[in-house]
Amino acid sequence: MNAPVRKTTRLLMLLILMLAPLPDLLAEDGYRMWLRYVKVASQEKLSDYRDQIRYVVAEGDSPTLLAARDELERGLSGLLDRTPPFRDSVAASGGVLIGTPESSDGIASLDFEGRLRQIGDEGYLIEEREVDGETLLVIAANEEIGVLYGVFHLLRLIQTEQPLHGIEVLSAPRVELRMANHWDNLNRLVERGYAGLSLWEWGTLPEYRHPRYTDYARFSASIGINGVAINNVNADPRILTDSFLERVQVLADIFRPYGLSIFLSVNFDSPRRIGGLDSADPLDEEVRAWWKEQADNIYSYIPDFGGFLVKADSEGQPGPHGYNRTHADGANMLAEALEPHGGIVVWRAFVYNPEQSDRFREAYDEFVPLDGQFAENAILQVKNGPIDFQPREPFSPLFGALEETSTMMEFQVTQEYFGFNLHLAYQGTLFEEVLQSDTYARGEGATVGRVLAGEIFEYEMTGMAGVINPGTDRNWTGHPFVQSSWYAFGRLAWDYTLTAEEIAEEWIRMTFTNDETFVRPIRELMMESREAGVNYRSPLGLTHLYAQGHHYGPAPWWNGGSRPDWNPYYYHKADEAGIGFDRTATGSNAVEQYHPEVAEIFADPDRIPDDYLLWFHRVGWDHPMQSGRTLWDELVHKYSEGVEAVRRMQQTWNSMEGVIDQERFEHVKALLEIQERDAVRWRDTCLAYFQSFSGMPYPEGYEEPEHDLEHYMMLWRTTYVPDPWYN
Amino acid sequence: MNAPVRKTTRLLMLLILMLAPLPDLLAEDGYRMWLRYVKVASQEKLSDYRDQIRYVVAEGDSPTLLAARDELERGLSGLLDRTPPFRDSVAASGGVLIGTPESSDGIASLDFEGRLRQIGDEGYLIEEREVDGETLLVIAANEEIGVLYGVFHLLRLIQTEQPLHGIEVLSAPRVELRMANHWDNLNRLVERGYAGLSLWEWGTLPEYRHPRYTDYARFSASIGINGVAINNVNADPRILTDSFLERVQVLADIFRPYGLSIFLSVNFDSPRRIGGLDSADPLDEEVRAWWKEQADNIYSYIPDFGGFLVKADSEGQPGPHGYNRTHADGANMLAEALEPHGGIVVWRAFVYNPEQSDRFREAYDEFVPLDGQFAENAILQVKNGPIDFQPREPFSPLFGALEETSTMMEFQVTQEYFGFNLHLAYQGTLFEEVLQSDTYARGEGATVGRVLAGEIFEYEMTGMAGVINPGTDRNWTGHPFVQSSWYAFGRLAWDYTLTAEEIAEEWIRMTFTNDETFVRPIRELMMESREAGVNYRSPLGLTHLYAQGHHYGPAPWWNGGSRPDWNPYYYHKADEAGIGFDRTATGSNAVEQYHPEVAEIFADPDRIPDDYLLWFHRVGWDHPMQSGRTLWDELVHKYSEGVEAVRRMQQTWNSMEGVIDQERFEHVKALLEIQERDAVRWRDTCLAYFQSFSGMPYPEGYEEPEHDLEHYMMLWRTTYVPDPWYN
Repeated sequence: MNAPVRKTTRLLMLLILMLAPLPDLLAEDGYRMWLRYVKVASQEKLSDYRDQIRYVVAEGDSPTLLAARDELERGLSGLLDRTPPFRDSVAASGGVLIGTPESSDGIASLDFEGRLRQIGDEGYLIEEREVDGETLLVIAANEEIGVLYGVFHLLRLIQTEQPLHGIEVLSAPRVELRMANHWDNLNRLVERGYAGLSLWEWGTLPEYRHPRYTDYARFSASIGINGVAINNVNADPRILTDSFLERVQVLADIFRPYGLSIFLSVNFDSPRRIGGLDSADPLDEEVRAWWKEQADNIYSYIPDFGGFLVKADSEGQPGPHGYNRTHADGANMLAEALEPHGGIVVWRAFVYNPEQSDRFREAYDEFVPLDGQFAENAILQVKNGPIDFQPREPFSPLFGALEETSTMMEFQVTQEYFGFNLHLAYQGTLFEEVLQSDTYARGEGATVGRVLAGEIFEYEMTGMAGVINPGTDRNWTGHPFVQSSWYAFGRLAWDYTLTAEEIAEEWIRMTFTNDETFVRPIRELMMESREAGVNYRSPLGLTHLYAQGHHYGPAPWWNGGSRPDWNPYYYHKADEAGIGFDRTATGSNAVEQYHPEVAEIFADPDRIPDDYLLWFHRVGWDHPMQSGRTLWDELVHKYSEGVEAVRRMQQTWNSMEGVIDQERFEHVKALLEIQERDAVRWRDTCLAYFQSFSGMPYPEGYEEPEHDLEHYMMLWRTTYVPDPWYN
Repeated sequence: MNAPVRKTTRLLMLLILMLAPLPDLLAEDGYRMWLRYVKVASQEKLSDYRDQIRYVVAEGDSPTLLAARDELERGLSGLLDRTPPFRDSVAASGGVLIGTPESSDGIASLDFEGRLRQIGDEGYLIEEREVDGETLLVIAANEEIGVLYGVFHLLRLIQTEQPLHGIEVLSAPRVELRMANHWDNLNRLVERGYAGLSLWEWGTLPEYRHPRYTDYARFSASIGINGVAINNVNADPRILTDSFLERVQVLADIFRPYGLSIFLSVNFDSPRRIGGLDSADPLDEEVRAWWKEQADNIYSYIPDFGGFLVKADSEGQPGPHGYNRTHADGANMLAEALEPHGGIVVWRAFVYNPEQSDRFREAYDEFVPLDGQFAENAILQVKNGPIDFQPREPFSPLFGALEETSTMMEFQVTQEYFGFNLHLAYQGTLFEEVLQSDTYARGEGATVGRVLAGEIFEYEMTGMAGVINPGTDRNWTGHPFVQSSWYAFGRLAWDYTLTAEEIAEEWIRMTFTNDETFVRPIRELMMESREAGVNYRSPLGLTHLYAQGHHYGPAPWWNGGSRPDWNPYYYHKADEAGIGFDRTATGSNAVEQYHPEVAEIFADPDRIPDDYLLWFHRVGWDHPMQSGRTLWDELVHKYSEGVEAVRRMQQTWNSMEGVIDQERFEHVKALLEIQERDAVRWRDTCLAYFQSFSGMPYPEGYEEPEHDLEHYMMLWRTTYVPDPWYN
């Protein structure tokens, strides 16, 4: 061997040695979520991508364009295992050109035949096309944020190993406001969070800019989220003080390049609590002036502040009712304060009081009479179902009922009712089920999704919110699969016509691997996971069987809460004669709140799908179900099916050892063990309880509870509730 | 260029590209603390180490030996940037041979001339010597845990770039029990923690073994910690239930190979709270039997369980006084239950009640009369000072007073009174100050350290405990420099004769860099950091000027607490006539609790060091200090000096940009900004308050408070307290 070879070889050996510790350092702890950017595994595709992306042209140096460049650099250097250089202009085929007509001469020189006009401020197009005779991948948008979204789209295509040849993508969001809601208290405990403390480290802000703030913005932008309410809707008035606004300002500055605008949850009583006023009456001039001052002050810190999120007259929160005013009065006062600055009010419709005979009815009864009375810059945020994020609810009758009030969705990503950070329950299927439900507003085909997108009524504003749970847990969400629901929420907020299944597949490929031996079975596992959760908790239209407050284990017997609608008994009303809540004309008649085509089906015990039966009907234990079984037998069947589904999930997962990294494999494996244990406990607890009324035997071939009811009542009384916020 | 060269070069280029993202992945987020194991920077030393460590011989496959092998592999592959192979036997010079005479034939064949007999079960020796004619580095110990400790020692030498040629180390711990105390509640909030939630994820245990549990054990073993009380001394009785013991067992299993045994803090009232008894009287036979059952049960899960840590009759905790029994009665009941299993009771001496005229006196008055009454397997855990982990206290007079009661130290690493996770305050100097204090028990030279080591009285057991704060924060401790106090505690528990300065230097080199431009100034910064904290909070023997409860900001005016000794006024007693607590014969006479040589000095206002003056004396505002200044002027001087010291720290730190990683640089820089702001507020608040009594002008040349006292009183009332546990 001659000298230069020997020297090169030694250098090579040295480099190989330097690489040795790499696997250890690259611990798959979940921090990178769906933006892992690991090298493309298929050699063929890798070399294809490398050929198509030899360099990047990204003119402009605004913060958003720099964020887009940074992300491209980070993503490509991981995925392609090489960092394509940034060049000033188009030089050869095999490059990526990104920008807006304003920022980039290259983009300006192209004729998009009006396509840019179709995609608004946030949309983008991605095309392979000739530029100066060279074949390039072009990401173009009207505004820079569209460019960033397009960059994430391109990276997603590579992450999921899609071909880029002849690509033609035109994408724009179907709703305007795509918003994350954090239920983070200022003491950093997160209500219903289960993933550590709040991301926002108030003690070190504004001085310290924790690196995770930027990563949070990256993840948000990667799925098109453009708004974030950073604090709990059970709001601490201190958030409006300068001391906190100085801190919030830093977050806003970090989020801005990523198109993410900040909203604050405000306490309706703030004028009294921190303003020194003796009223919070929304028609009081002093109160109105106070809120204007607050708005002015906030905008002096954050010129592009999004607005307020408000929970009023709900679960003990103050609101306009305290002054005999309506929700519209309350919302409009805040809207008026924000309006000069372009801010909006997101007003929650989650209201109920213990006097009402049926909590189901309340939001509708409260808000439909106010339709048309809300300011143009106010939007009503309605939970997907009439009660509260239960494993399955019929869609809220407010969707399709408000013709003149902008109405947005509130989904819950955090698993308040789905086993916290311990159970696997992909919520994409729940979101899809709701978005595809037909409200029949103005006739057939008026799905909830279309209502939200303003396709049925002409809303001033459109939006979707997701109550997400990220916290200081290294993997952001506690259970690694809660990431998938966060991802699905963002993707569906962008485009409600996507399916839960395609989103699941995307997520799996980005988060774990493109290995088909993993993708297909885990996609199936995810697709059945939410139904499993429904079945082992509250099948057939049962709901809210949780012990008061903590929402983890079952306590169907509990009837001693401080208000009836916080008790499971209120919802199931089981006795020897039967079970279920009569919401037909013979009962609370909540069913009348739906459009006739829906109401008719829900009102008919023979036509209503089994899944919703006990939501609307009180029936005997021997009521014949669509399967031909009696209600009791079907209940046993469904609860058992829930447990069996979890066992199938376990089996599937456990067969994946070695296909993915050991770290996440072990984590999910352990969590599925916990889930199986809990599912059995739910099943046995609920069946032992309901059997004490039905008095009917277990049908053949099903596992029976090992213990008597008393055992399960004691078990859940002493079970550890893993929630610092609750404890 | 010929073909092989070209090919090699291409491969080389590829490898270089693969390396590109490395710096990003290797984010210096502090997780690895002082076990970073980055490549030795000095080329000369690196090649020396590589020559000396070409392979490793480590016979045996017990869990502890495997842990030692793993650590060597991890450490060397990082430090030397190559992984020396493990071989079965000595083959050539330039190897490391580790083991015990029992596990290793190589070790057994060597003659250590009795040196192994000197180092007990946990000690080790490291020597360069000839084995079968080859020169090797030998790590030998009597027990395997000694081998592991020796491995950490060897790695530390390389981390700090010490020469290994001719090395001869003989090391054994000077106290037996070196214990971490966690004040972690079962809901995972950490009392006085400030670094996220509890490390122990009770919700996913016992199924999920979080990788950080092993890392925690590694860090502990690396500094010789051999016991850990995992739960808060304000103890939740549920820790004794099977449901929790199943979880604790998993931690014990993970910790065992690292020589770390588990202790539980128990609630004295457990027999009543969870045992169904109606008494917790330590002389009640049923109660005694109940505790024996609990001990038997615990040992069925954890055969090497360490024992109980008990806070009784203190700050509202139940204890033997409720049954008119003594602390010895209480401790001995638990000792009796643990004794058959080899467990011990660590009984805290931190007791005081509001009736006592001087809280300072209480622990001594309570425990000295009980000297000799404690069981052999009980040990008294005494806080370093008579009050409560204040920035500076005189050493507790209990050290040196208990001739027949095993007595151990309780230090606090977590910064309850030192600015939480926001201020930099290396506690090594505080620990050293206490350990080097001369008690004069049985004459001169009876330092606290020697008392603890059993060198003055013949204690059955010896020990030191540190209340540490690690939590789920990525860097374990919140402020990166709290790591240094944790490290110092462990090192001093192993060997109280080490100096704070040499420990600081070790820690800096391991945690940041061996670059001298960093090491020297940052060591100086650390060495003055605790004194700075004393000065801007409570100089000259002032103490406990905190607002009740949160212990973050000053509230020297506060006098409305639920008991007098929770009020700052109780401690400073400032009025127009003067300031300070008279603990001489004309006052509470607490000074009599010290041996005469100490008492004489403390009792004399002219001989007592200024640092302790107001601890023992009430003096006028114009009292002449050793500097020649009046007390008032000296107070202004000291408070100002505290602020100036922080500013010097800032200046020093900010000059280090580029010398270390940007991530930790920015973090500490931001925290020092916060600390400077807080230091100014402390100074101005306290001086404005004390001036309202002294009525004296600020001496020339000092910054005066910008605002009046009222401003500061309001400021601290509305200041955010960054502590989820407190909020």
